[in-house]
Amino acid sequence: MTLDLTTAFAGKKALITGGLGFIGANLAIRLVELGAKVMVVDSLIPLYGGNLFNVEPIRRQIRVNISDVRDEYSMAYLVQGQDYLFNLAGQTSHLDSMVDPYTDLEINCRAQLSILEACRKQNPTLKLVFASTRQIYGKPEYLPVDERHLCRPVDVNGINKLAGEWYHLVYNNVYGIRAVVLRLTNTYGPRMRIKDARQTFLGIWIRRLIECQPFEVFGDGSQLRDFNYVDDVVDALLLAAADERANGGIFNLGAPDWLSLRDLAQLLVELNGGGSYRIVPFPEDRKPIDIGDYYADYRLIQQVLGWEPKVPLREGLARTLVYYQEHWQHYV
Amino acid sequence: MTLDLTTAFAGKKALITGGLGFIGANLAIRLVELGAKVMVVDSLIPLYGGNLFNVEPIRRQIRVNISDVRDEYSMAYLVQGQDYLFNLAGQTSHLDSMVDPYTDLEINCRAQLSILEACRKQNPTLKLVFASTRQIYGKPEYLPVDERHLCRPVDVNGINKLAGEWYHLVYNNVYGIRAVVLRLTNTYGPRMRIKDARQTFLGIWIRRLIECQPFEVFGDGSQLRDFNYVDDVVDALLLAAADERANGGIFNLGAPDWLSLRDLAQLLVELNGGGSYRIVPFPEDRKPIDIGDYYADYRLIQQVLGWEPKVPLREGLARTLVYYQEHWQHYV
Repeated sequence: MTLDLTTAFAGKKALITGGLGFIGANLAIRLVELGAKVMVVDSLIPLYGGNLFNVEPIRRQIRVNISDVRDEYSMAYLVQGQDYLFNLAGQTSHLDSMVDPYTDLEINCRAQLSILEACRKQNPTLKLVFASTRQIYGKPEYLPVDERHLCRPVDVNGINKLAGEWYHLVYNNVYGIRAVVLRLTNTYGPRMRIKDARQTFLGIWIRRLIECQPFEVFGDGSQLRDFNYVDDVVDALLLAAADERANGGIFNLGAPDWLSLRDLAQLLVELNGGGSYRIVPFPEDRKPIDIGDYYADYRLIQQVLGWEPKVPLREGLARTLVYYQEHWQHYV
Repeated sequence: MTLDLTTAFAGKKALITGGLGFIGANLAIRLVELGAKVMVVDSLIPLYGGNLFNVEPIRRQIRVNISDVRDEYSMAYLVQGQDYLFNLAGQTSHLDSMVDPYTDLEINCRAQLSILEACRKQNPTLKLVFASTRQIYGKPEYLPVDERHLCRPVDVNGINKLAGEWYHLVYNNVYGIRAVVLRLTNTYGPRMRIKDARQTFLGIWIRRLIECQPFEVFGDGSQLRDFNYVDDVVDALLLAAADERANGGIFNLGAPDWLSLRDLAQLLVELNGGGSYRIVPFPEDRKPIDIGDYYADYRLIQQVLGWEPKVPLREGLARTLVYYQEHWQHYV
């Protein structure tokens, strides 16, 4: 059975790395509703997802600490006294990880290790949830992709995220620092970065749509993808944190209404009441790191934690468009 | 069919990182015999495997460059003009990787990335062979372990080696820098470190045996393991380098004469004509990172490259004992 989240989080202290970013800020808002004492940590690196406006609804109810997860000393201080650590900070751009592999390594790999070392030394009883990515599977051999699929990353980002998740699992297994890994698929919704495609291609699609510009679909548009509305991802993060049965586990997220990118583009245009897109060949730098078709088998998290996505794609996209039309000036 | 190695290497330039170490030095000796121009790079870190005596037979025929693979600038210079890069430098101690995870990360993870960046920028036509490890599989789910077994490392060393091998594969796949990954199992033979168990537990066993001290077998001695004599591993490295069919591949090494550690201990005592060992419980720090039984399925490299181990365990161990009796003063 699924846990009662209010009981789990009321009065509890939660630290969110990347807490001013897309998923982190939505999680912070939900944790405040559940009565948790929330501290968000974010580096506000301009090319990443952090945005102070993201926590506008809760700005007086949380603590905001600007620092970088690569800063071992600030992290060693901040983890102290926390009950939960939602470890969401990361470099997310696949392309950037190829152009500047060291920065990706420092953030997605080395900083994860230093966060875990900080927990081991300062607070070994806290519970960690790590946001990993379906990118680590690489080009799927079969669909839907379950957690037993081989991990064969196609870019540096996928490799470093793979290392990051295993640091968490090894610290769980060797030191008993409770940790769970969620492998997220495409997440979308309010508070995502829409300036460019660094966080998700849906960001730039929505930006262009609202700007009445055609957006670009790479390849032939036939690639299959699954999408989670951010509130569903927040649910999964909370369940993984609250439920002891998750400890040491790896769980895919996913959705039943996967579709082709072309169908997604048409759906967006329809929901927006207008707009256009162009099917263009893959840019040279993106083609070798594309993963082809992907959608997840997420039955494991259904079975173990009772999670399933609740917001259908059509509804989630509609809510997302409304959010950006309303708060446009804070995101572009 | 298996390639003619003399044709492949005569007159060719080969760089070996970790070239004063156990496998690197044996490889250097063989490459000199094949007519290659060899440069070895080694940091000579006292706790690692580098030992100048290891290249004594070829000291006037090779170039020795003392530098650390973490030194980006020296590596960027040294890769220039090379035809082959045998990338063997690494931190090998599982236990040390838990005590000092950052050093393991810097050597096994970040340095690999900087070596590949150096190749991409300075010499993208060279061929790379990366020495990975069976440690990345973690506790086997089935035996023998083939290359489709999930990678679930049990310690920080296994995670960083996993990242290291995938950097090589991504650079092969994205940039066309030809690279092959070999997943080595326990390797033994002349020129291994015997001062302690940092490189292989067989090192310390042989040291104690020759010192007429009992050596220690951890656990109950029933753990199964496979062993490759170093000359067979050198053969695999050479075939992987010479054969274009290997590019982008991952290959297990292994041996048909796997056995329990207790049987191995008895065999060693027998070959030594005396000696003793004690079965002792796992030390607290080793127990959680032990992988249980392991032996490899190495049919893939048999099929693709025609490699198979030629030196039976009994013969290899006998040769090894003779080597250390003869050259004792250079290794303890």
